[in-house]
Amino acid sequence: MPETPFPSTATSDPLRILITGSAGFVGSHLVERFLNEGHTVIGVDNYISGQVSNTDLFRDHPRFTFIEADVSHGIPYTGEKLDWVMHFASPASPPHYQQFPVETLMVGAQGTQNGLELAHAHGAGFFLASTSEVYGDPHVHPQPETYWGNVNPIGVRSCYDEAKRYAEAITMAYHRSRGVNTRIIRIFNTYGPRMRPDDGRVITNFVHQALRGEPLTVYGDGSQTRSFQYIDDLVEGISRLMMVKHHEPVNLGNPQEITMLQLANIVKEIARSESVIINKDMPLDDPIRRKPDISIANSILCFIPSIKIENALRKIMVISDE
Amino acid sequence: MPETPFPSTATSDPLRILITGSAGFVGSHLVERFLNEGHTVIGVDNYISGQVSNTDLFRDHPRFTFIEADVSHGIPYTGEKLDWVMHFASPASPPHYQQFPVETLMVGAQGTQNGLELAHAHGAGFFLASTSEVYGDPHVHPQPETYWGNVNPIGVRSCYDEAKRYAEAITMAYHRSRGVNTRIIRIFNTYGPRMRPDDGRVITNFVHQALRGEPLTVYGDGSQTRSFQYIDDLVEGISRLMMVKHHEPVNLGNPQEITMLQLANIVKEIARSESVIINKDMPLDDPIRRKPDISIANSILCFIPSIKIENALRKIMVISDE
Repeated sequence: MPETPFPSTATSDPLRILITGSAGFVGSHLVERFLNEGHTVIGVDNYISGQVSNTDLFRDHPRFTFIEADVSHGIPYTGEKLDWVMHFASPASPPHYQQFPVETLMVGAQGTQNGLELAHAHGAGFFLASTSEVYGDPHVHPQPETYWGNVNPIGVRSCYDEAKRYAEAITMAYHRSRGVNTRIIRIFNTYGPRMRPDDGRVITNFVHQALRGEPLTVYGDGSQTRSFQYIDDLVEGISRLMMVKHHEPVNLGNPQEITMLQLANIVKEIARSESVIINKDMPLDDPIRRKPDISIANSILCFIPSIKIENALRKIMVISDE
Repeated sequence: MPETPFPSTATSDPLRILITGSAGFVGSHLVERFLNEGHTVIGVDNYISGQVSNTDLFRDHPRFTFIEADVSHGIPYTGEKLDWVMHFASPASPPHYQQFPVETLMVGAQGTQNGLELAHAHGAGFFLASTSEVYGDPHVHPQPETYWGNVNPIGVRSCYDEAKRYAEAITMAYHRSRGVNTRIIRIFNTYGPRMRPDDGRVITNFVHQALRGEPLTVYGDGSQTRSFQYIDDLVEGISRLMMVKHHEPVNLGNPQEITMLQLANIVKEIARSESVIINKDMPLDDPIRRKPDISIANSILCFIPSIKIENALRKIMVISDE
């Protein structure tokens, strides 16, 4: 990111921010950032995929409050006026959302709507964490925000993909018909500390397999690509977007694309691992390529992901190995 | 349809069927058919787009009960064991759903889920009325059920399209993870008696414009096509699908494709109308072509729409003119 300070929550007056999914991977990094910047944070989670250890990190902080609740059934917040409701609650890795398909659908529909209603009642902004999964298995490459996607509405991933598409639709409906000050981001693959070890996504799998000396599992022939964004870049983009009145979706991701086979070899190298690479069948409806077009984030937020995967992986593997 | 009787609700033992959206266009025709066949029907509607006159048709029938309720907030049925829950509630014409975007989203999400829960509790079948709108502005023509669609998740039509895609996803989730005996149909443009005069869809518009001697409004240059199914063909398809354990979506529509300009001229001719045809700008995200591939319905249900548009229109215009 540019050295010159860009308007973000780092320079704003103290805010009161409610974050659903505060015990999740991305949610917990937002809590940390906002507390460090002097804001007041209310975290909400039901631990369906979040981790208690992520709440414990902030439990004693004077400006942090935690509410254990399933936001699909309501957000029991009765405190002072909120400035932001940030909806980051949802299982997000395929093994988790396929284990909880109905809960995943609900947190996208009822959960999003409960967040929108709360924001509306408080005159607060509403910030939706959507996903690159709304593009499905894309026919357009890289994916700009104007691409409508290629999602199987009845496939095994649809409980997540369609829930997020619905979440975007209802967010736009509240913006258009009820005037809620909304933001929508589409998060592309992101990694960093505090992902669940059983997250099931490729970086976590490779890191843990390499550190344990187990074979690294590559699905298909490993030529499918992903682009990985380090969590700090994502959090910076979110913080900047809060200050810009842009209501249409914004891609946040790192366009540097690598194949799964390249990734496996980088991880092996950093871990100095002797692990072999084994191939398994490709899961159903798994996208072949996905890479963000970040022109909009670049233009309105000066968003330039700056963290190199080799450096970040080295850092994560030290933490994971401790 | 073939002359030889095909298994359908016409030949089944008496059933107890709950229909959401019973006062709507399609819902009311289902009520009529099932009552005529000796079944017991519980109708539910909140009249957001249904018509009281459609309930009045059956109010005195000994096997009909009506519950006025918004199914998005629950289905207050406490009666005997149901055999079927049929979810047909939703605004379905663009002017209606764009007037009620949040309600349309809710009846697709919470409404569908409440229906699924009720079906699950009763061990009943669940029948979802989905729509050809899940295909959006299709790149594949005609549309088979395997086509994943081209829908703008944040467009002005998304409150309907994404709600129905979500409804399909949660229906499949309840089928897969909770064993509910589900059906999904994707209804293509359907017309017939009891459509609202202010329905806003093209056949209703043309018929009323022609009968009043007003100009017929064609959007764009009128070369966009639709394929129109008469309500009786749809109802027959629904009745047959109830008897077949096919859980994936099934297209129900008439593949006979005509342009809007052809349709305007047919209506003018039947009405012996002097009306002129005027052109207006195409609405946002309006699909250019849509035509069902009905191979699956044909193969599993012997579904062959048999009613010609000229004959059906003549019938409707006599009713509408009375």
